[in-house]
Amino acid sequence: MQAFQDYYPENLAHCYGCGRNNAQGHQIKTFWDGDETVTHFQPRPEHTAIPGFVYGGLLASLIDCHGTGTAAAAMYRAENRAMDTLPAFRFVTGSLQVSYLKPTPLGPVLEIRGRVKEIKGRKVVVEATVYCAGVATAQGEVIALQMPDTFVAK
Amino acid sequence: MQAFQDYYPENLAHCYGCGRNNAQGHQIKTFWDGDETVTHFQPRPEHTAIPGFVYGGLLASLIDCHGTGTAAAAMYRAENRAMDTLPAFRFVTGSLQVSYLKPTPLGPVLEIRGRVKEIKGRKVVVEATVYCAGVATAQGEVIALQMPDTFVAK
Repeated sequence: MQAFQDYYPENLAHCYGCGRNNAQGHQIKTFWDGDETVTHFQPRPEHTAIPGFVYGGLLASLIDCHGTGTAAAAMYRAENRAMDTLPAFRFVTGSLQVSYLKPTPLGPVLEIRGRVKEIKGRKVVVEATVYCAGVATAQGEVIALQMPDTFVAK
Repeated sequence: MQAFQDYYPENLAHCYGCGRNNAQGHQIKTFWDGDETVTHFQPRPEHTAIPGFVYGGLLASLIDCHGTGTAAAAMYRAENRAMDTLPAFRFVTGSLQVSYLKPTPLGPVLEIRGRVKEIKGRKVVVEATVYCAGVATAQGEVIALQMPDTFVAK
């Protein structure tokens, strides 16, 4: 099964968080699970905040890219289109908010689950929660905006 | 001149964003500039969003650690204490919000400037703006909380 990010256009797949063409990046993969979206990610030892716990900036990054990926998938669903059809949807982040509920232990694979809160015009609002060993440790909201053409470097 | 992060206790200096003891991390360095705080950071080529622009998750991470560093420095100032005096202040992030104002070109050194908005009990609220070549491209707010003892891994 292909992830949302596997459908990103070739020239828009370099994102450090979610681009399959970024060899140094996180290369997250997001899938539908009913009406929710899910990403699994294994933090590396260097993704430390305080020793033993996951770096909050990584959690923010995961929520961010999970959100823009979910936004694209949701827009295809709203239009009853398969993700391999053109024109491709690709979103950027307008705003990102993260609340750290409790320390996230470093070790287990993390699960990020998203829900589409709103689709309006070129905007999709996605709520996401990070779980570690079944416990919600962070939650956030991404306001994703369909990428303006001007954002593409010539 | 030593940066705020140079004063972090040895066992709390492993953060991927700001820990001097994290060889793989960003190791940001933050200083006072009058009543503002300033961090400079050179993104690496892999810190890409769309080709030519900086990854938003990196900007969120920089704002995050700039915020917790500013919070610690502000608390020392509020108590008229030098940063090398004990007990050490170390903050974690309760909440992080980032608004992406415009794409951030990848190439120039970024400047993050912070202002203390509020100090109340164990909480410090810091506003921060990211500048690229003098242009504000992102702004955010960090609610930093003085680290509870329970956060330290035994």
